[in-house]
Formats: sequence, C-alpha cells, structure tokens
Amino acid sequence: MRSRYPRMVTDSNPTDSVDRAQPVDHGAAERRKRQGLTIVYTGNGKGKTTASIGLVVRAAGNRMRVFFLQFIKGQWKSGEREILRALPGVDLEVTGRGFTIEGLRDPRIPMDDHAAAAAHGWQRAKEIVQFGDYDLVVLDEILGAVHADLVPLQELLELVRTKPSHLHLVLTGRDAPPELIEEADLVSEVLPIKHPFERGIKAQRGVEF
Amino acid sequence: MRSRYPRMVTDSNPTDSVDRAQPVDHGAAERRKRQGLTIVYTGNGKGKTTASIGLVVRAAGNRMRVFFLQFIKGQWKSGEREILRALPGVDLEVTGRGFTIEGLRDPRIPMDDHAAAAAHGWQRAKEIVQFGDYDLVVLDEILGAVHADLVPLQELLELVRTKPSHLHLVLTGRDAPPELIEEADLVSEVLPIKHPFERGIKAQRGVEF
Repeated sequence: MRSRYPRMVTDSNPTDSVDRAQPVDHGAAERRKRQGLTIVYTGNGKGKTTASIGLVVRAAGNRMRVFFLQFIKGQWKSGEREILRALPGVDLEVTGRGFTIEGLRDPRIPMDDHAAAAAHGWQRAKEIVQFGDYDLVVLDEILGAVHADLVPLQELLELVRTKPSHLHLVLTGRDAPPELIEEADLVSEVLPIKHPFERGIKAQRGVEF
Repeated sequence: MRSRYPRMVTDSNPTDSVDRAQPVDHGAAERRKRQGLTIVYTGNGKGKTTASIGLVVRAAGNRMRVFFLQFIKGQWKSGEREILRALPGVDLEVTGRGFTIEGLRDPRIPMDDHAAAAAHGWQRAKEIVQFGDYDLVVLDEILGAVHADLVPLQELLELVRTKPSHLHLVLTGRDAPPELIEEADLVSEVLPIKHPFERGIKAQRGVEF
C-alpha cells in the first residue's frame, strides 16, 4: 500500500540528542522555551486515536496539563475514557454523535445533528487551544470532521498557525489534507497491513474499543 | 514512501458491528469466549510505542490485567512509565539497556550487555505470556531486539502460535519480519511523513519522551 503523501524523512532518532540530565521545570519558564509541535496522526490503519492516548499518558507523566477533545465518537463509552479522565492534569470532553466517521452514514442520525455537534466541538476546540493554559491538546478525529465538511479546513489551518507557541497540538483522523501536512511539524501515517476481519475475527473488547 | 509489506486490507470498520449493549463480564467466561489477537505496530514512523500505551489504557479501562514489558529502552525514565504503573491492573517491567535500538550502536555499552539484557527480557516475556493470567501483554520494542538478533525470530513465532487463546499480544518495533506479519491478526505500519527535525526543532519533552 502506498502512502498518498510525498514527504519523506530520514530514519534519525532526535531523542538521542536530548540532554536527559536537564532538570524538569513545569512552570512558565519551561513553557516559554518550549517549542510546541503540531502533530498529525493520519492514515487508514488502526492506531491513530490509540497513539494520541499514548501521548496524553506521556504528557501527564511529565506533569503537563492536557485536554483531550473527541470529535464524532460521541455516543459510545469506551473504556479508556474513564482512565484518561482520572489521570492527573487531564481534562476530557466528548462532542459529536456516532461512533466513527462511518457513523455519519448512519441514517438514524440526521446530518443536521452531526453538523450541530461538530460546530459545537469546533467552537470548544478553539476556546481550549486559545485558552493558553494547556500544554497538550488532542483534537481526536477532527480530520474526519474536516473531511466531512463539518469543520472548515481554513479555520483549522488558522488555529494551527495562531496557537500558543508552547502548546503541543495533536490532530487525528483519516485523510489529512496536504495543506495541513504542510503546516504540521510531525506527521505519521498509519497504514493497515493486516486486519483481523480478514480472518473472520470480530472486534475485540479492550483492544479495538 | 512505500510500505514494504504486500498485504492490503479494505477500509471497513469492524467496531460498527459490535453489540454495544452487551454486558461486560471480566471473568473466566469472558476470557473463554475471547479471541486474543496478535497485534503488531511496525514501521519507521513515530507512534508505535505510543499506540501500545494507548492500548494499555483502553484495556485497563476495560478492567483487564495488563503487562507492559519494555525491551531495549532501559536506561531512561520516561514520563509515561509512572502513569502506566499507577493504572489499575497494569504491571510494568523494563529490561534491556540503551534508549533505543540506536543505543545498540553506542560503543559505551558492550554488546554482551545488550545480549544478556535481551535474553533476560525474552525469558520474562515467555513467562509472562505463558502465565495465562494477563489479558493483554505488550512486548514493546521486541522487534528491534529480533532485528538485532538478540531475540530469535523462530522462538517469537512459536510464542505467538502457542500463547493462551484469550490473550491479546502486542508487539512493537521497526522491521517486522514477513513471517511474523503472517502469524499476526492486526498489523499497522506507521510511516514517517514529516518530522520536526526537518524544521530544526529539538525533541520536545512530553511528546517525544
């Protein structure tokens, strides 16, 4: 399977250059010198939301303040939410309706409901990012909302350009637009190489949900 | 960037078929009917360990018993470890030396030390998997150890084939061998599309470590 994205990076490991003996300062001074990254997890494979949850854990482990805002996957209580909510410094909010972007095609949920939920979620996203007191903000599945024209791409690009400089902003979902790749600092594409569906195995609790 | 792996999957979403109203039973009955998956996160991009951490959170949120065994990344205290250790039902152990697979090339650490650490880690991995009382076991960066010939591929394949049937087994690291892809149920490849190094940005605390 071929990536649709033209950019390639070398296989270096930047963390090797980090001074690990450096003391940790979680206050204003650390924020001033921090260069907040815009991170995109995209692609059709499994692991995008999962990786963003991993980043939340890592940030919480560094005593950062985190906001995890979930678009689209609104109706369903998945196991990780209660755990995330209980982590120190982590706030979590769910917006949108339907389990995934596929839920958008569920005829039982009117598109107006999706649109209203996405508009509300996008308003919250802007408030949370611009609030300035978070160190890491995850907008989970927002790219699905952008792809479905429920969130305007131009506004998302504007948010990325104008976010607080210390803030790490994580965006997940399929179909990341090239303009966003251009603005982002770190982009990983998750490709599906193999899926249990091929083997006739149903989705398994604790792994896929 | 092109994936090296030939398999492709369709873009379906298996979780849509899940009966979400089904009650959760975390006891023996639930284990008996569970089909434990072998999950592989591979590829050169950022997000493999991070995604496996996300799976730990999800499993813990489903009240599963989890063991997270880290190969290779031994010397360094990263932020997520303390958080993971504090999650209900999660055990964590670190084996190996050096920060990443690149650490294997660090001349200050004799290869014999790596080999001894990997052998110890591999012994622990087999014990933990065969113990049978865990629901999810992550062998983080084990594929790096396999690639460096510190863990025998044939033994890993044997472990996958003989693991308890209820156990979800997660293997991460670059260079997943084709024989392992063949045995696995769910394989995602994380491709690096863009990296902050290209922009001259150093590794950032709370995100990359």
